[in-house]
Amino acid sequence: MLRVGIVGASGYAGNELLRLLAGHAHVEVTYISSRSLAGKPVSDQYPNWRGCDKWVYKPHDPLAMAEQCDVVFTAVPHGAAMEIAPKIMSRGGKFIDIGTDFRFRDCSVYQEWYRLKHTQPELSKEAAYGLPELFREQVAKARIVGNPGCYPTGAMLALAPLVKNGIAPQQGIVITSMSGVSGAGVTPKPMNHFPNCTENAQAYGTATHRHTPEIEQGLSELAGAPVRLVFTPHLIPMSRGILTTAVCPNIGAKWSTAALTQLYKDFYADEPFMVVLDEDTLPQTKAVTASNYCHVSVRYDARTGCAIAQSVIDNLVKGAAGQAIQNMNIMFGLEETTGLLAPGLMP
Amino acid sequence: MLRVGIVGASGYAGNELLRLLAGHAHVEVTYISSRSLAGKPVSDQYPNWRGCDKWVYKPHDPLAMAEQCDVVFTAVPHGAAMEIAPKIMSRGGKFIDIGTDFRFRDCSVYQEWYRLKHTQPELSKEAAYGLPELFREQVAKARIVGNPGCYPTGAMLALAPLVKNGIAPQQGIVITSMSGVSGAGVTPKPMNHFPNCTENAQAYGTATHRHTPEIEQGLSELAGAPVRLVFTPHLIPMSRGILTTAVCPNIGAKWSTAALTQLYKDFYADEPFMVVLDEDTLPQTKAVTASNYCHVSVRYDARTGCAIAQSVIDNLVKGAAGQAIQNMNIMFGLEETTGLLAPGLMP
Amino acid sequence: MLRVGIVGASGYAGNELLRLLAGHAHVEVTYISSRSLAGKPVSDQYPNWRGCDKWVYKPHDPLAMAEQCDVVFTAVPHGAAMEIAPKIMSRGGKFIDIGTDFRFRDCSVYQEWYRLKHTQPELSKEAAYGLPELFREQVAKARIVGNPGCYPTGAMLALAPLVKNGIAPQQGIVITSMSGVSGAGVTPKPMNHFPNCTENAQAYGTATHRHTPEIEQGLSELAGAPVRLVFTPHLIPMSRGILTTAVCPNIGAKWSTAALTQLYKDFYADEPFMVVLDEDTLPQTKAVTASNYCHVSVRYDARTGCAIAQSVIDNLVKGAAGQAIQNMNIMFGLEETTGLLAPGLMP
Amino acid sequence: MLRVGIVGASGYAGNELLRLLAGHAHVEVTYISSRSLAGKPVSDQYPNWRGCDKWVYKPHDPLAMAEQCDVVFTAVPHGAAMEIAPKIMSRGGKFIDIGTDFRFRDCSVYQEWYRLKHTQPELSKEAAYGLPELFREQVAKARIVGNPGCYPTGAMLALAPLVKNGIAPQQGIVITSMSGVSGAGVTPKPMNHFPNCTENAQAYGTATHRHTPEIEQGLSELAGAPVRLVFTPHLIPMSRGILTTAVCPNIGAKWSTAALTQLYKDFYADEPFMVVLDEDTLPQTKAVTASNYCHVSVRYDARTGCAIAQSVIDNLVKGAAGQAIQNMNIMFGLEETTGLLAPGLMP
Repeated sequence: MLRVGIVGASGYAGNELLRLLAGHAHVEVTYISSRSLAGKPVSDQYPNWRGCDKWVYKPHDPLAMAEQCDVVFTAVPHGAAMEIAPKIMSRGGKFIDIGTDFRFRDCSVYQEWYRLKHTQPELSKEAAYGLPELFREQVAKARIVGNPGCYPTGAMLALAPLVKNGIAPQQGIVITSMSGVSGAGVTPKPMNHFPNCTENAQAYGTATHRHTPEIEQGLSELAGAPVRLVFTPHLIPMSRGILTTAVCPNIGAKWSTAALTQLYKDFYADEPFMVVLDEDTLPQTKAVTASNYCHVSVRYDARTGCAIAQSVIDNLVKGAAGQAIQNMNIMFGLEETTGLLAPGLMP
Repeated sequence: MLRVGIVGASGYAGNELLRLLAGHAHVEVTYISSRSLAGKPVSDQYPNWRGCDKWVYKPHDPLAMAEQCDVVFTAVPHGAAMEIAPKIMSRGGKFIDIGTDFRFRDCSVYQEWYRLKHTQPELSKEAAYGLPELFREQVAKARIVGNPGCYPTGAMLALAPLVKNGIAPQQGIVITSMSGVSGAGVTPKPMNHFPNCTENAQAYGTATHRHTPEIEQGLSELAGAPVRLVFTPHLIPMSRGILTTAVCPNIGAKWSTAALTQLYKDFYADEPFMVVLDEDTLPQTKAVTASNYCHVSVRYDARTGCAIAQSVIDNLVKGAAGQAIQNMNIMFGLEETTGLLAPGLMP
Repeated sequence: MLRVGIVGASGYAGNELLRLLAGHAHVEVTYISSRSLAGKPVSDQYPNWRGCDKWVYKPHDPLAMAEQCDVVFTAVPHGAAMEIAPKIMSRGGKFIDIGTDFRFRDCSVYQEWYRLKHTQPELSKEAAYGLPELFREQVAKARIVGNPGCYPTGAMLALAPLVKNGIAPQQGIVITSMSGVSGAGVTPKPMNHFPNCTENAQAYGTATHRHTPEIEQGLSELAGAPVRLVFTPHLIPMSRGILTTAVCPNIGAKWSTAALTQLYKDFYADEPFMVVLDEDTLPQTKAVTASNYCHVSVRYDARTGCAIAQSVIDNLVKGAAGQAIQNMNIMFGLEETTGLLAPGLMP
Repeated sequence: MLRVGIVGASGYAGNELLRLLAGHAHVEVTYISSRSLAGKPVSDQYPNWRGCDKWVYKPHDPLAMAEQCDVVFTAVPHGAAMEIAPKIMSRGGKFIDIGTDFRFRDCSVYQEWYRLKHTQPELSKEAAYGLPELFREQVAKARIVGNPGCYPTGAMLALAPLVKNGIAPQQGIVITSMSGVSGAGVTPKPMNHFPNCTENAQAYGTATHRHTPEIEQGLSELAGAPVRLVFTPHLIPMSRGILTTAVCPNIGAKWSTAALTQLYKDFYADEPFMVVLDEDTLPQTKAVTASNYCHVSVRYDARTGCAIAQSVIDNLVKGAAGQAIQNMNIMFGLEETTGLLAPGLMP
């Protein structure tokens, strides 16, 4: 049994980790911490755990975790994980950050967009970017993984077959995403106040969202050349899920929806969590709710010569906790799908 | 491995059975049928199964099921299960009806409320009422089980400690429930049209809902005397979940919320799916979404001498498919909680 | 033109007042105040006003309002209105409190439930209870009105015909309500955090809600004798609306749904905002969204001898701002329906 | 008083017309028809009208309408309005089609996308495209108006300042919209079944939506040259509202968000229903719910040289019935804003 710790277990990603790990056959959760809720049972924060007295938040103590855990997940605000990582890793523990601190190989990009000095540039360079469908080999060898952001996961999985195969241009990709409100976190704010959110589609972060450089980094690596794109997120009235619509301009006249769909099916043929939809179907977020699956579709628009790729994920699972566990499974040589095969929840 | 069949797998309860059975360690689903969708993959109806080619609806053929299944679940409109049950049972198969055909021991009540002649009065008398927390022994011995309705499950579990202990009166209980829209089924109708449901609380079935006599039958059996009550359901803008508020008048002056809560904790002490909430907490449906748990609370209103008991369940799990599997586990001597221990899904 | 002021315009009831008064033919809004947002345009708080630069929050200054307003509405936390009322009224202004400070004729009830000393017992005694359908004459003569709570409005309008006619018993009425989340106010809290509210029905305030004594006061006055009842509110996933289901036990065997419906139609025959639904229809909140109407239905349950009355209102209109304007119209001799005749918003 | 008729009053756009016209000072609704509901009161279909016996659906009879109406609105499936228009206009009545039959000046585009022969090519050529902010003069002179589609309204208003001023390129515009479910109509279907829609973002119509050529027609006219673009709609879990995000690539390096915002403010300076948001604000649909306003914002993305324009409308008001009334006001020389000045409904 792998001994697992979670830092920041009182947030949504942390609690989702707990839900998924509780059903994982080869894992024992030995330490869950919360600065604000130390000493309290998890069920005080998340009533779905009522009746289960097993889980209690412990104080934040990286050294104790280093001793009691083979792997530690952090689900904390940016800037916090970079302080914790060396302490865990110094005792041989592996480290998976669900936050942003270890997503960028080039710290200067991080520092520019997050306006914070990175104190662990070496670890940052060492860290694997934990999107297994695209970077599995790096993850398998990694001591430390930066788990992708929710939007980047959906966007890159939608676009990878086009970018990796040199079909998409380096300039001109337009990505538009709509996210459930859980993506804005567990802390009540006007933006996620129920009366403000219900029956409301809200634009936010237009031209400034911090997931933009993360998507560009990933696609640039796939393209072998710098990719620049426009990314626009939106908040829509649902709790979970992200739908991403990505338009690739000018892919040339020789394509068809059938050919692109086949390309995607070939590209993701061996991926257990990727479902490429047939030509008569388009994705919907509910189909992947509470699951680690990602559904993608692709269309060729003959009128304009564009490809339109669309994906759906659950932002808290494939976009956070589920993908982190998938990375853990790979890092420790477990079957990659362990604990992650539940289908989406419908209706 | 138990060989399991599902009749009516294209409805919500049927598909929820499939979701839960897919994660059950001791079960193999060998036959799922749908009259309208025979030959089609389940993923055509429920896109959460896309990428899983395993499940295909077969034609409705009770005799084939009788041969290929150790137990058959029916999730069909009333009147249909009574035709299927004898065919399954004649070959030794056990039978669990999620619908209404085998919930009443006295067929005349069924016939009065459902306005349909019951063709299997003997089987109806033989059938156990599958609410394990209250009638586990009968279920354990049963060849055939009538799985409770969703509202009756929530209402009886809220009231049982008061009724069984003779604290509740035979007359005067007032039960008010609010249900998610999945309870109205998979068929689009004006009542469950999205623009009509969102931001809308709708009264329906006031003084006439067919779950009324079912609740009365169960509570009368617990009381050892006829119970008459008022039950009022409502449809509210969510997909899953039922919250029930039950008021017991005139329970006397000697009580307190603490004493009632203790009574409930004692009553349900050994029940794996029952969570009696502490005095400082009240139930919410989201805490049990997608789970087989039932949360209950009880308050004593000293001003009026009433007890107010409240419960929440997921109407498709503890109110339908999950409870049916719980019954199956009991009928076949499996650990009762097998396949049913996932916590609720939050947020 | 009546000169109108609003204290606490930054809350939901205050902003709804502004919305409705902006369409009122005989009113000029001369002063709207907010302690926290003084100096800011209303459109900063409520983006539906963007493009309209007319409304700016002013500082809280009761004496200035007294001079600039013929009538002042307060939509403030309890305890605040009792300090403001004398200042407004000393200059001859009329006063309508949408909050709780002037709802109780007997201050000791207020003090017991709100745990606050009432500093204006004389004004409290003088104030009319502003539910025009039941207490129009008092409102017409009043200098000061305590506008009813949202739940009490729905509950009393549902029950009044039974109580006023001596059909309902003094003991044993059971009222269950479900409210939209706007009723919990504009301040973000865990209880009204979108991810916690969507797809969730939450119990709260069981046996302790402060609207209980207000409903009892009103019904007792109608009955001419003390009424004691059980009131249970719930929070459901919608922004606006309250549905109330009220059960009157033991009204005797001589009734029918037809007879009760006729009784209601007669009782409310002259009321412009009351719609008594026919026997084949039940109320839904969406039908009255954004309107000042109240729909009521009544059923006789012959099995138990109970009457079941149900009502719907928009909690921010008939349950707050709309009713306050209705009171203003009456107090100033305007046509009672002025500015309030818009139908509900569907879908 | 203008005598007004509505054909297809039982649909959402038709009923919204009725709601808005009921509050219009210079209009008398003299004839509302519904094929399926003739003889029934409107309140049977839309319970927000309960208590108002005034409105009853009449049989479909264009000649009767021609005599009793100065202007007729049609809100009917495509193909139906082209049969009605000549009958109304032959008696001198003006005609406003909320559907699609008179939106295209070039019938061949209509015929290609709607796969239906157009029987009134002359009227089609004569008809004004009823987007007053862009084509007011044509509307003012028109006997017949094709009211724009909901998506085209939002998309064109977002893009017009860029296109009209030659800033946007003819190729490469990418428009992504998300719509409330009322846009899919009043008829229950799986796609708008509540359990399928709630907590779900659904892609549909990718690369094939029929509003694409309508947007292209309008923008081409503004540009004075053919515009080709990609339009992708989505269905999100709310009843009303459309948010549109439009990306214009390669507008050059000389721009800034401030400059673009000023351009938009100048462009729409005299428009009563257009609100150009400041640089620190982005649009949200709820701000315009139930109103005829359109909020737009624009951002310059210096990294890519793109402009990102965003708009929100209520699909049933500015996207259908409200805009139709705005057109009527213009056609008859009434104040353009008559009956349309209500602000959005929040919360």
